[in-house]
Amino acid sequence: MSLITTRTAGVFVIAVTPFDETGALDRASLERVTDFYFEKGADGLTILGMMGEAPKLTQAESREVAAAAIRRAGGKPVVVGVSAPGLAAIGELSKAVMDLGAAGVMVAPPMGLTTNEQVESYFAQVVEVLGPDVPLVLQDFPLSTKVPISTGSLGRILEAHDSIVMVKHEDWPGLAKISALRAAEAAGRRRVSILCGNGGVFLPEEVARGADGAMTGFGFPEMLAEVVQRAAAGDMDRAQDIFDAYLPLVRYEQQPGAGLAVRKYVLAKRGAIASAAQRRPGAALPPAAVAEVERMLARQEAKLAALAEPA
Amino acid sequence: MSLITTRTAGVFVIAVTPFDETGALDRASLERVTDFYFEKGADGLTILGMMGEAPKLTQAESREVAAAAIRRAGGKPVVVGVSAPGLAAIGELSKAVMDLGAAGVMVAPPMGLTTNEQVESYFAQVVEVLGPDVPLVLQDFPLSTKVPISTGSLGRILEAHDSIVMVKHEDWPGLAKISALRAAEAAGRRRVSILCGNGGVFLPEEVARGADGAMTGFGFPEMLAEVVQRAAAGDMDRAQDIFDAYLPLVRYEQQPGAGLAVRKYVLAKRGAIASAAQRRPGAALPPAAVAEVERMLARQEAKLAALAEPA
Amino acid sequence: MSLITTRTAGVFVIAVTPFDETGALDRASLERVTDFYFEKGADGLTILGMMGEAPKLTQAESREVAAAAIRRAGGKPVVVGVSAPGLAAIGELSKAVMDLGAAGVMVAPPMGLTTNEQVESYFAQVVEVLGPDVPLVLQDFPLSTKVPISTGSLGRILEAHDSIVMVKHEDWPGLAKISALRAAEAAGRRRVSILCGNGGVFLPEEVARGADGAMTGFGFPEMLAEVVQRAAAGDMDRAQDIFDAYLPLVRYEQQPGAGLAVRKYVLAKRGAIASAAQRRPGAALPPAAVAEVERMLARQEAKLAALAEPA
Amino acid sequence: MSLITTRTAGVFVIAVTPFDETGALDRASLERVTDFYFEKGADGLTILGMMGEAPKLTQAESREVAAAAIRRAGGKPVVVGVSAPGLAAIGELSKAVMDLGAAGVMVAPPMGLTTNEQVESYFAQVVEVLGPDVPLVLQDFPLSTKVPISTGSLGRILEAHDSIVMVKHEDWPGLAKISALRAAEAAGRRRVSILCGNGGVFLPEEVARGADGAMTGFGFPEMLAEVVQRAAAGDMDRAQDIFDAYLPLVRYEQQPGAGLAVRKYVLAKRGAIASAAQRRPGAALPPAAVAEVERMLARQEAKLAALAEPA
Repeated sequence: MSLITTRTAGVFVIAVTPFDETGALDRASLERVTDFYFEKGADGLTILGMMGEAPKLTQAESREVAAAAIRRAGGKPVVVGVSAPGLAAIGELSKAVMDLGAAGVMVAPPMGLTTNEQVESYFAQVVEVLGPDVPLVLQDFPLSTKVPISTGSLGRILEAHDSIVMVKHEDWPGLAKISALRAAEAAGRRRVSILCGNGGVFLPEEVARGADGAMTGFGFPEMLAEVVQRAAAGDMDRAQDIFDAYLPLVRYEQQPGAGLAVRKYVLAKRGAIASAAQRRPGAALPPAAVAEVERMLARQEAKLAALAEPA
Repeated sequence: MSLITTRTAGVFVIAVTPFDETGALDRASLERVTDFYFEKGADGLTILGMMGEAPKLTQAESREVAAAAIRRAGGKPVVVGVSAPGLAAIGELSKAVMDLGAAGVMVAPPMGLTTNEQVESYFAQVVEVLGPDVPLVLQDFPLSTKVPISTGSLGRILEAHDSIVMVKHEDWPGLAKISALRAAEAAGRRRVSILCGNGGVFLPEEVARGADGAMTGFGFPEMLAEVVQRAAAGDMDRAQDIFDAYLPLVRYEQQPGAGLAVRKYVLAKRGAIASAAQRRPGAALPPAAVAEVERMLARQEAKLAALAEPA
Repeated sequence: MSLITTRTAGVFVIAVTPFDETGALDRASLERVTDFYFEKGADGLTILGMMGEAPKLTQAESREVAAAAIRRAGGKPVVVGVSAPGLAAIGELSKAVMDLGAAGVMVAPPMGLTTNEQVESYFAQVVEVLGPDVPLVLQDFPLSTKVPISTGSLGRILEAHDSIVMVKHEDWPGLAKISALRAAEAAGRRRVSILCGNGGVFLPEEVARGADGAMTGFGFPEMLAEVVQRAAAGDMDRAQDIFDAYLPLVRYEQQPGAGLAVRKYVLAKRGAIASAAQRRPGAALPPAAVAEVERMLARQEAKLAALAEPA
Repeated sequence: MSLITTRTAGVFVIAVTPFDETGALDRASLERVTDFYFEKGADGLTILGMMGEAPKLTQAESREVAAAAIRRAGGKPVVVGVSAPGLAAIGELSKAVMDLGAAGVMVAPPMGLTTNEQVESYFAQVVEVLGPDVPLVLQDFPLSTKVPISTGSLGRILEAHDSIVMVKHEDWPGLAKISALRAAEAAGRRRVSILCGNGGVFLPEEVARGADGAMTGFGFPEMLAEVVQRAAAGDMDRAQDIFDAYLPLVRYEQQPGAGLAVRKYVLAKRGAIASAAQRRPGAALPPAAVAEVERMLARQEAKLAALAEPA
């Protein structure tokens, strides 16, 4: 069992949850997609996230998915999303998945929090429920949660709770926040790992600003891995070339709500899951969108081929 | 086991969940407060509602509270709040509590729904998950859920799903909506039971407009019962006299968030529960508020004494 | 010309703007209702507030209403609501009305602000635009603005900007905030005037907690005046008796949106304005509501008569 | 004077409002940037939009900007944003700018509308205030307004009000809505012009789905013009090649709030305006962002050069 730390870096893919056409959990695809993510360069996985259709699972299924993913990951780190309206539910699921070998848990603030004080108090309660030994990822995703966390609040939360080892950064715009977090560390605050979300749409800038990598989903996780690796190696031009080739699809897959159908379509086409089906409610990719995606895939392939040629 | 129907009337008290000072479930008080509510005139109970601290319970505790309340109610109807972010969780808890003998389940729309179409689609999904035989209460409480349900949308939902037998009405302002619902029935739409929430702060007007009673909490449930009974008997003046005597406290207890501490303080003072404690997070009534409540209670007692005297 | 200060106390009535049945400004009624408010005990007026239908006025009309009210007030203080989406508009209108002799201006934060930092920054900008010499009322009304101002933020704003001499307090629940403001002053922070809104529904508690009075509208402003005066004189029981007699109507008139039709109905019935008409959009009081109001008025009159009798 | 119609197509650039370093209107730059937009291929302009810092202008300045832009446009169509919290203000400004020769006015729903009925009623009121002869653009931008307009509501609004000749489409995700609008027209509904916003980040897909062009801002409006022209001519591959070359900057400039500093930086660098300054509040582009933009500009230039070479 490996735990995430304030030094964790690389790419943690937000894993999809595979279902078959009837809406039943597809256990074989769950194993296959886990392998796929690691084969394509993932350093870890994050399961039961917003894009993992977690709220559509029963409690028993949630634990089964966690157990299966952790087992299949074979010692590689798996973070589990445990956000819930109630602290009791967060505590219950966290204990269960940490016992199963999770590398940490992730919590986003619940809709309805408004003032800075409420946000800061909320994470204090979460940390109290989890105890000091469970590595916690704070998910900062106001576009979805409707809870903005100001840079000042985020700093106070990090100062108060050492068990928050990582920020899943997906504020938008958010580049200045990464710079501010790193500047505070340069001025003496403890380090925290920053992995970025938002489908990777600002990944080159984010790593250049000091982020440690990505925690997001994308139909081609090898792009995330290569951009992070190239950037870490100082080859920003190559990182950007690779990124640009995928950017039309990144942008398209990042559409709120609609993007999951795109992602599952791509993953099914690539053989990572047997079916693109989402459990209901959740629509299939409409024909017009299929055509748009296919056109993007063809162009993307051509660009990548051109990049692969000797200059 | 009695099920709620479109003809259900009277007072369903939103029950508190008693905890001891350590935050543990107080099982003895759970039985005592159940008895108390019925002794004071309740026709039924609603448990695991927003004011029942439901999100603070583990799943096991939720089922235990439901089982205990249903058992103690001895055949009187108990509605169970099952709102959750995910349909799977709603389905799981609903099945469990209906098997335990619940009279029906109650669902409020989750935060984040915006258009009419999203609201209508949401209840279609809920009904599909529950199946056609589980009596469903639609909770219309936009102040808390941030999801307004227009009169038109509410009508379409009621027309589409016969298993929605009751509306827990707590829109604000909401009197015109009650009149509109009853007018639509006069014009041919099927009847639905309307029980009103919001701490009863408009109860006389609501029953005069055609509501069937109240589904709300208050430290003196006998007020709710007497107002509904007097109004049903046509004695609106007496109903209003009783109501007016309690109105300062009704208003005070209806404060969002803060009101639960008032309610538990009153219930503990009256012996219905052993402790006013809320499970964390949840604050005790501050001393300044205790003084205000005590002053209101003294004045309320004097007014009720005057009302009891022969004119 | 009198300016409001940090010591201003009493009742500032939020004035309605009278229109005739065609939607035209009713200038005669504007003078009459101004007189009416002062005859009924107002210490000042606040015009062009949310309940004054300010957004329905053209810019020329806004200035005309301000000029007429200030002139008619004859030296008594008139505060002018100047909230607007843009700082330039706030600056323009403020300059205009201060030149006309306004006692100060009132600003609520615009919808869309989220973090504490945004709220604090907003009022810094407003103060910069107004300059240090315009007495400013900060309106804290999150139910309407959707912008909560935490007690901490409010304190920092007050510490930073001496020209904010008054808080129009209508947070809900908000009693603890009044106590916190006064406690901070006891600990050394400069004093600020606190006048309370929300239709006066918590007025007795508010003045007991240290508020200086009311800034709100109500069809019977003499209630606001008497409650504040009795409370200031230490006669809380009589203050409460008066308040309780009006409370059913206070509660009814406080309904968001719908309440203005009630208020104008009552003011027209009392002869303070010629017509209850609102400029469009804005609906007349529906017949069912008229009946409810009339019933409340009759009961209110009887209660006041009983209170007037020698004990 | 040319008016927009249901057949209007092409690119209407959302114009910036130029200020000098002191925050004063820069009248010379206003003329220069107007020329610049048309030189770069704009078919029309839209002024006083959200990205035009309209709320920071006094009423007199708003009219001056409108007059100057309309005069300088020399007969080419200029749409004027007139959104305001009150209908009276919308009516006043609309009359003024139409008298000056505007091609139409644009209105977004005000924050705070919730149900479909409220949105539909709002546009009915706007149309009533404007009268039937003022060509109206409905701005559908829920990310900014917080008012989602469902496809059904949008259809009912278009059916009810013929003077709404254009939709500024910037829902996100929004491709399916374009398809639905065109499908409804194929089934008999009157045609409406659809120009797309959102910084153009989905422009190729939007025009392929039937949009008539773009109404948005971007530092390189020639990209918008060329993509729309190539797409209209059926050369989607070339349109996409051009688009892809600019996409990293499109994405970067589309950041909410922060994007305007990017846009003004680019426009100032290109000589279209004298200064990138925003009137306060409004920050300059931070150094880290300047470096990111410069890097993108260099890469963009190289890509465009490669595209310009003979294959």
